[in-house]
Amino acid sequence: MLKGRHLIDPMDFTLLELEEIFDYADEIIKSPEKFSHICDGKILATLFYEPSTRTRLSFEAAMLRLGGRVLGFSEAQSSSAAKGESVADTIRTVECYADIAAMRHPKEGAPKIASMNSKMPVINAGDGGHQHPTQTLTDLLTIRNIKGTLSNLTIGICGDLKFGRTVHSLIKAMSRYENIKFVLISPNELTIPTYIKTEVLGKNNIEFLEARKLEDVISDLDILYMTRVQKERFFNEDDYIRLKDSYILDKDKMKIAKEDMIILHPLPRVNEIAVEIDTDPRACYFRQAKYGMYARMALIAKLLGVDK
Amino acid sequence: MLKGRHLIDPMDFTLLELEEIFDYADEIIKSPEKFSHICDGKILATLFYEPSTRTRLSFEAAMLRLGGRVLGFSEAQSSSAAKGESVADTIRTVECYADIAAMRHPKEGAPKIASMNSKMPVINAGDGGHQHPTQTLTDLLTIRNIKGTLSNLTIGICGDLKFGRTVHSLIKAMSRYENIKFVLISPNELTIPTYIKTEVLGKNNIEFLEARKLEDVISDLDILYMTRVQKERFFNEDDYIRLKDSYILDKDKMKIAKEDMIILHPLPRVNEIAVEIDTDPRACYFRQAKYGMYARMALIAKLLGVDK
Amino acid sequence: MLKGRHLIDPMDFTLLELEEIFDYADEIIKSPEKFSHICDGKILATLFYEPSTRTRLSFEAAMLRLGGRVLGFSEAQSSSAAKGESVADTIRTVECYADIAAMRHPKEGAPKIASMNSKMPVINAGDGGHQHPTQTLTDLLTIRNIKGTLSNLTIGICGDLKFGRTVHSLIKAMSRYENIKFVLISPNELTIPTYIKTEVLGKNNIEFLEARKLEDVISDLDILYMTRVQKERFFNEDDYIRLKDSYILDKDKMKIAKEDMIILHPLPRVNEIAVEIDTDPRACYFRQAKYGMYARMALIAKLLGVDK
Repeated sequence: MLKGRHLIDPMDFTLLELEEIFDYADEIIKSPEKFSHICDGKILATLFYEPSTRTRLSFEAAMLRLGGRVLGFSEAQSSSAAKGESVADTIRTVECYADIAAMRHPKEGAPKIASMNSKMPVINAGDGGHQHPTQTLTDLLTIRNIKGTLSNLTIGICGDLKFGRTVHSLIKAMSRYENIKFVLISPNELTIPTYIKTEVLGKNNIEFLEARKLEDVISDLDILYMTRVQKERFFNEDDYIRLKDSYILDKDKMKIAKEDMIILHPLPRVNEIAVEIDTDPRACYFRQAKYGMYARMALIAKLLGVDK
Repeated sequence: MLKGRHLIDPMDFTLLELEEIFDYADEIIKSPEKFSHICDGKILATLFYEPSTRTRLSFEAAMLRLGGRVLGFSEAQSSSAAKGESVADTIRTVECYADIAAMRHPKEGAPKIASMNSKMPVINAGDGGHQHPTQTLTDLLTIRNIKGTLSNLTIGICGDLKFGRTVHSLIKAMSRYENIKFVLISPNELTIPTYIKTEVLGKNNIEFLEARKLEDVISDLDILYMTRVQKERFFNEDDYIRLKDSYILDKDKMKIAKEDMIILHPLPRVNEIAVEIDTDPRACYFRQAKYGMYARMALIAKLLGVDK
Repeated sequence: MLKGRHLIDPMDFTLLELEEIFDYADEIIKSPEKFSHICDGKILATLFYEPSTRTRLSFEAAMLRLGGRVLGFSEAQSSSAAKGESVADTIRTVECYADIAAMRHPKEGAPKIASMNSKMPVINAGDGGHQHPTQTLTDLLTIRNIKGTLSNLTIGICGDLKFGRTVHSLIKAMSRYENIKFVLISPNELTIPTYIKTEVLGKNNIEFLEARKLEDVISDLDILYMTRVQKERFFNEDDYIRLKDSYILDKDKMKIAKEDMIILHPLPRVNEIAVEIDTDPRACYFRQAKYGMYARMALIAKLLGVDK
């Protein structure tokens, strides 16, 4: 039963609950017009204590496409937080106005505190470097739809694996499916944290490989999940110059990739995927953004209990 | 007749007109679904020249829950004011787009000027330290609903009584009802202005008492209206340390309060009400926020003349 | 066929296409209630990389009055642009959420790039000093409705003719109609650029006259289009003091104007039209703002292909 629940951590839902959401998203994708009034009279509050246009617009589009309405704020300075109000007080006020809330906050744990003080469902729309569970829903729904399965996949993840919360959540989430292998591609400075290797991959007996260069491993992958590598994260300029091309996806690397490998990216992209790739049928990152909206539509409907 | 009127000053409406609004709010509270389409096709403009999330969201929720739509801005830098446009010109433009406007402005009198140049109803959503009439409507509707009456009440108001516009408006508004007594609790530096004592309380023969400490008078109160006392407002640090606890409501003080005393607060709260009080059934400040939305729903419907 | 088209440059549409939009706007003006649901289920994205409240509110009101919904941002710092995302990527993401977009951008050409990467219609809502085609639609619709024609008119344009993009677009657009004469009134420093004189006026054999003082020519005009002259644009203080009154429209100058001359202004106005003029029946600048909303309603409906 998802009605009335919160979504704070990508692992909050069981595999069965996720399947329920994804099945529902698929129905919406099939005939969106059937769902265009199920949230009539409902209000989503978007409480964004830091700007994140993409995520905010995706939530707002999701609610509007279900027939609901939206209110909220898009940055902290317009909010009562500036007057010293606690997150607990804010959510207790906002639940007077809205039926469900999506909260983005620079501080880890803020959406959790909100959910503990809220009678309406609270969705974590990203809290600091911590969690971003609707991105994980998006990633899973995209893989499930384009690859047709969430099992038996070799998933390459490339870029900054140390600080990327999206990446950590994806690994945790995919580790629950069967016969998953990871190929973790990053510079030395930005390898996956040890706790992910031991607590997540090790504990679940997930096979994984660490690599330094994308070109060395790309031909093995069913999915390539790209993320950005920021120059500032390298220890020295020499390393950066020597290595950076290994983390940029271009036509040459795509030549040795599988015919049915799909490229994902949480966006925004800067230059880690060359624009020339955009027309490659394997480039799925904009379709992924669309799946993000459908995932949020399904999630909102399920948490509000308006799904039919 | 409220259709087409403005609300600039809390005293703009007669007692009968207020009763009409409150009666209508009660009908909405009883069966909100009956009112969920009365503003179909109508647009509210929220013109917020300074941020006030709580008030803005309350107005927006009110309009959306009536079936209407909302547009506007939430801070001055996004508005044409930055290009030197007068408030009169702005309202004459906005009335091309909207059917009713709520204006928040740092300058006293700005909403008044807007209303004088507007063919659509203008609601003052707070102008500087001056007026905030929908907060007063909120306070009155809350008292009327929870206490069942607006007469025969002893109302304690605690905190900064010198600068608090909410407090001044509440005193003026409540002074029109029968057998009201005020207990005004504040440090010496922040007592109620003389004109309120003479022009409002004196002229209307309202009984009132001034007190320095909340604990000395709390047991007499039917209503305790808390507001914040800012440290910077004290003349010296010693006074602040000696006195501050007298303006913080906690469990000990609540022990000596009446069983049916209700606690109100315009919010946001910082620390003047201890969080431990939130679960006390006498704590009504979050319900007050909900009444705020209903008061605004009734007000918007009445000014637009769409009430049935 | 306007369905699926973009509007980037005021000259993108033929005279016939413009007529189709204006005719449709007239139908909306006649019975707006007939059009209040034609955009049900459609979403407009307002992508404003720089604030422009007036234009944004006009677009939002237009979409809401057609039954559609709106999402977006009102300034760049809330957008993904801050993270280095290209306009092309942003539009490809936003088209996952919305059905049509209006883009305001400080850089010339940004909306053009967006349109080249977008499967949904993109409307240029102003790009730097370059183009602002919906202002031109507004101006034309206003003239057509109040004067009853777009031909056989003597149009005075007063103020900063050098930098005003509104003015340049208006001249280009009106040069396509029959028997148009221009009277271009500006200080020496701010005369119309040479390329407009040769490429637009000269090439089309349009009669025009340049004047230094409004009072010298106002009696000849059918239309007076006022714009602001900024003090900083003058070469020296003496010139400014000597000349500024010649660019301020007041009662004295209106005495010698034709009985049926109409005054237009793109707004916001600062002091170039004296407030005393506002009640003159020839003052049409606020009606112009209203026509702006209707022009955008017609445009959105046509580009979405929902017009019936």
